[in-house]
Amino acid sequence: MASVTGSGDRMHALVERLYPLCRSITGDGVRATLDIVGEHIPLQVHEVPTGTQVLDWTVPQEWNIRDAYIADPTGRRVVDFAASNLHVLGYSVPVAATMPLAELRGHLHTLPDQPDLVPYRTSYYTPTWGFCLSQDTLDALPEADYEVRIDSTLADGHLTYAEHVVPGQVADEVIVSCHTCHPSLANDNLAGIAVAVSLAQELARQTPWYTYRFIFAPGTIGAITWLARNAERVDRVKHGLVLACAGDRGQLTYKQSRRGDAEIDRVLRHVLAASERPHRINGFTPYGYDERQYCSPGFDLGVGSLCRTPYAGYPEYHTSADNPDFVSPESMEDTLAVCREAFAVLDRNRRYTNLSPYGEPQLGKRGLYDSLGGRSDAKEAQLAMLWVLSLSDGEQSLLDVAERSGLPFDTVAVAADALRDAGLIKAGGG
Amino acid sequence: MASVTGSGDRMHALVERLYPLCRSITGDGVRATLDIVGEHIPLQVHEVPTGTQVLDWTVPQEWNIRDAYIADPTGRRVVDFAASNLHVLGYSVPVAATMPLAELRGHLHTLPDQPDLVPYRTSYYTPTWGFCLSQDTLDALPEADYEVRIDSTLADGHLTYAEHVVPGQVADEVIVSCHTCHPSLANDNLAGIAVAVSLAQELARQTPWYTYRFIFAPGTIGAITWLARNAERVDRVKHGLVLACAGDRGQLTYKQSRRGDAEIDRVLRHVLAASERPHRINGFTPYGYDERQYCSPGFDLGVGSLCRTPYAGYPEYHTSADNPDFVSPESMEDTLAVCREAFAVLDRNRRYTNLSPYGEPQLGKRGLYDSLGGRSDAKEAQLAMLWVLSLSDGEQSLLDVAERSGLPFDTVAVAADALRDAGLIKAGGG
Amino acid sequence: MASVTGSGDRMHALVERLYPLCRSITGDGVRATLDIVGEHIPLQVHEVPTGTQVLDWTVPQEWNIRDAYIADPTGRRVVDFAASNLHVLGYSVPVAATMPLAELRGHLHTLPDQPDLVPYRTSYYTPTWGFCLSQDTLDALPEADYEVRIDSTLADGHLTYAEHVVPGQVADEVIVSCHTCHPSLANDNLAGIAVAVSLAQELARQTPWYTYRFIFAPGTIGAITWLARNAERVDRVKHGLVLACAGDRGQLTYKQSRRGDAEIDRVLRHVLAASERPHRINGFTPYGYDERQYCSPGFDLGVGSLCRTPYAGYPEYHTSADNPDFVSPESMEDTLAVCREAFAVLDRNRRYTNLSPYGEPQLGKRGLYDSLGGRSDAKEAQLAMLWVLSLSDGEQSLLDVAERSGLPFDTVAVAADALRDAGLIKAGGG
Repeated sequence: MASVTGSGDRMHALVERLYPLCRSITGDGVRATLDIVGEHIPLQVHEVPTGTQVLDWTVPQEWNIRDAYIADPTGRRVVDFAASNLHVLGYSVPVAATMPLAELRGHLHTLPDQPDLVPYRTSYYTPTWGFCLSQDTLDALPEADYEVRIDSTLADGHLTYAEHVVPGQVADEVIVSCHTCHPSLANDNLAGIAVAVSLAQELARQTPWYTYRFIFAPGTIGAITWLARNAERVDRVKHGLVLACAGDRGQLTYKQSRRGDAEIDRVLRHVLAASERPHRINGFTPYGYDERQYCSPGFDLGVGSLCRTPYAGYPEYHTSADNPDFVSPESMEDTLAVCREAFAVLDRNRRYTNLSPYGEPQLGKRGLYDSLGGRSDAKEAQLAMLWVLSLSDGEQSLLDVAERSGLPFDTVAVAADALRDAGLIKAGGG
Repeated sequence: MASVTGSGDRMHALVERLYPLCRSITGDGVRATLDIVGEHIPLQVHEVPTGTQVLDWTVPQEWNIRDAYIADPTGRRVVDFAASNLHVLGYSVPVAATMPLAELRGHLHTLPDQPDLVPYRTSYYTPTWGFCLSQDTLDALPEADYEVRIDSTLADGHLTYAEHVVPGQVADEVIVSCHTCHPSLANDNLAGIAVAVSLAQELARQTPWYTYRFIFAPGTIGAITWLARNAERVDRVKHGLVLACAGDRGQLTYKQSRRGDAEIDRVLRHVLAASERPHRINGFTPYGYDERQYCSPGFDLGVGSLCRTPYAGYPEYHTSADNPDFVSPESMEDTLAVCREAFAVLDRNRRYTNLSPYGEPQLGKRGLYDSLGGRSDAKEAQLAMLWVLSLSDGEQSLLDVAERSGLPFDTVAVAADALRDAGLIKAGGG
Repeated sequence: MASVTGSGDRMHALVERLYPLCRSITGDGVRATLDIVGEHIPLQVHEVPTGTQVLDWTVPQEWNIRDAYIADPTGRRVVDFAASNLHVLGYSVPVAATMPLAELRGHLHTLPDQPDLVPYRTSYYTPTWGFCLSQDTLDALPEADYEVRIDSTLADGHLTYAEHVVPGQVADEVIVSCHTCHPSLANDNLAGIAVAVSLAQELARQTPWYTYRFIFAPGTIGAITWLARNAERVDRVKHGLVLACAGDRGQLTYKQSRRGDAEIDRVLRHVLAASERPHRINGFTPYGYDERQYCSPGFDLGVGSLCRTPYAGYPEYHTSADNPDFVSPESMEDTLAVCREAFAVLDRNRRYTNLSPYGEPQLGKRGLYDSLGGRSDAKEAQLAMLWVLSLSDGEQSLLDVAERSGLPFDTVAVAADALRDAGLIKAGGG
């Protein structure tokens, strides 16, 4: 996959455009987000009714919100949803009341250690209401009676998620999943959505080996809904990647699948190491993003997660400071590049069987060998052929060959193509 | 198991009381020792007749000794069994003779490099007699004719060993074994006996999961006798620990079973590492204490050995300097604490199967999840539940969960209890 | 196997005697070489006709050369085969012509970075002709017409290789293979041939356990021919060693078999580590000497390669500087010593089954145990017996015992002999 000039800027523009929308795990903010994504890549949008049983969960009522504020006795809005959708506790039930500050405090969420930032909070499954504001704002409020109003609706409706499929040469799938449920938070997860969109666009310009399925769904309940509705077909998912926190300026972090030695794990480890980027490889934990669901032991899919700085690992996490300035075009372009490189390996990684395994086959008579030596490129290509012949026992993959030989994966893959074309190896087991 | 105030002092008092008795692999000294132990915990005492075939061995004649000395021409006892039972070579045949020093020397054992100490020596299976004395004493003896007398008996009798059982919820057993054959040597092995007694007392105040069997038997021949007489039932022994050298002031040493990855090995490694005590983990060797017999390849039990400084690793080893001052209450209490912690892990270590393995089960609706976050304790408890759910595939144990997650075993075990009570996991395989 | 005084000098004398012969992958130079080797050890010489299909290859025409030179207009030979057989490109077709230097240059091979050395070059399967000379010689040639003449023959004939067998107690074989196709190059591979000859002589003075088969054959095509002609019997080859570059002054290098954990790999790693020689252990690569063929995936034999400095790892490699001065008697003697030590381990490495596996057998009653302790040698011997008894489960070999116990292999093997003689263990699985 060739690098795409300006993709960083285009991704950043998408982040900025999606930023103001009030997303949650259901509701019109999600639909508006998918409408915009759908302008870039075709989407199949799914609407799943409230009350639908999905694995151990039930699709909740749909939440929509039009306005919300706290007003002082003069009628001035001291906290206003219109200024930032973070100001309302996600899934707040409607409220219209006037109450003294002392009573109101029980519904206010702040970050005392980061007094100028507004936190992001939700209460999906326990009906309540609340506001999020900076500690500085709260400290400046005089004791008084305040009008509080949340013009929200919690009603039967739908959970909305979308898929985009890039057809491959085989039905085996690679899934790329990102959560769409966070309101105005840029790194978590608009950057992940933007990288996924660019990746899908690039893949669509090829005919990849695998079928690539992009899933845009709310966190937890969305992935669970997708898994519940695709339980019969989930065994075609051979590999996957959850994208989140894809745009901050920190180094890349790959979190391995529960299996730890899934092919996607080996590919990401290889690509990150080979690229000589500073990076971290983390073991699986059952906390994080939707890899939690894909890697739950009943499914145990080979799905890892690629982030820059992982969740909760940066002070801006889940605060108003996770705004579009916090993510950079260069970082998103770098995340995209690693996805591109990883899928380029994954997509060509095969197991072959040497059809001439007794002694070395005579490469020279097939035109595969420079008879009098030659350039170092040619030597590396020949060495790669010998390695592929040596290890192609139907069990070891080209990635195994690359890792054992120390040769670049691409050199190994090209050598394998030449040997396959010469009839010396065939794909698959013996 | 709660710490027991003053247990160190009580253990030391037991060491001091047992110290003067002349133990060997058979004889009345062993019986007197078991009588005293029996004052603390009920014992089933076994008497196995001389000549009984036990595995590849035969129970030897019983040895008893009343008096022994070397007297100079004036009749003064220059070496006297009454002063220390170490002075007589264990299992010495009776002798009554007068001989010049030159002839006597062939029967004298000293430690030229530790000239003020009396060595401990035995000759169980080669009939002979001898005395042990300090090099200083020997050097001070003038050339003269000496009266030597050993008033011992070697006669058909019995080998004596004892068992104490703490019944558990299951018939599967944990054995705790210590050797009872050494005369006046405090660390080797009165400290081990004392720790075993305290451990048995503590376990008896609970209803442990496993049945705990304490074995007090002479080294080698005693363990072999126990194995021979329990060959039919030995497969119920799931885990075990040999206690020896349990009271010196050195750091703890765990010697792994022959299998090296037995559960007892993993538990001790985990507990010692988690406790942040300085300690050593040693690989199995076929030399040492009765783990040699329990781990012989035909049995190959999961039995490790817990010492402080291992045998032959301290200069006082097998000398008169291994006296009650050499062992400390604090060290024995520390050894006891590690046994207590290890058995607390072993006793609760189970494999579970996640009954809701597809996606995460919704913890909130079962009251297992704080809906709005909370204290760090609560977060750790929730994380532990997610880890238990993720790894409970019927193969991985709670110890695996603790090690992979880095969470304390206790937190993991509590989480598993909560999940089991909520019907989300069940003990055992799928 | 005892060290043989003066073997280094004798090996060096053989190198010097073989050095002037013009070897190639076929031809009379190989035959003359084998004649001389045959003066030291009996050889079975095989002649395989041109055109014989061997695995994926075909035995080529036989090449012989009588004279070759480049003469200047005065008739002076400026490059002369009689001075060094490296001067002719191996397998050069005959030529007799006069041509200007400009045209001749296309047939001349030099080493511009090592201007005083003559390179070694061949073109076995692409018919051409050429001369090798130093860059200095080339630079001194004035522009002029030169007479070039190569009096060679390429004609149907034979490929020649030889075997020497030292019969063992079992039909299972160890092969020692060295290539015989290089002309005047001392380290690569006359030193390997010389070490193999001495090793064969030493083995013949014993009755080894394995049958040792020495193969003297041209590189690549020779090993392939041997494999093709022995395909039915190749499964009796249990272990093997390719000897090359056995005489330079560098440290030893063992290159592991493709399997990496073959017994020969473990033996060489053990012997080199135990000897405390500086050395390198390299992983398998599908490039190098005839281990490439023996380890091709269809055969996948346990064949490693022992060199001092590996091919292409020294500046004299494949140049006129690889002359008899480049190899030393001491280095060859050292290589021989490691082969001797390795085969002494390999030849005695067995798996045993403990026939008395329940508890320790009583060694004392069988005279295997010093009842009152004793010298450190005796203690080590006893410990070795306990280790052999502990690990003899029919799976673990004496080398496993040596490695796990840290005891010298020889001590372990002697202990095993004593236990076997006492009827406590038997060779093989349970």
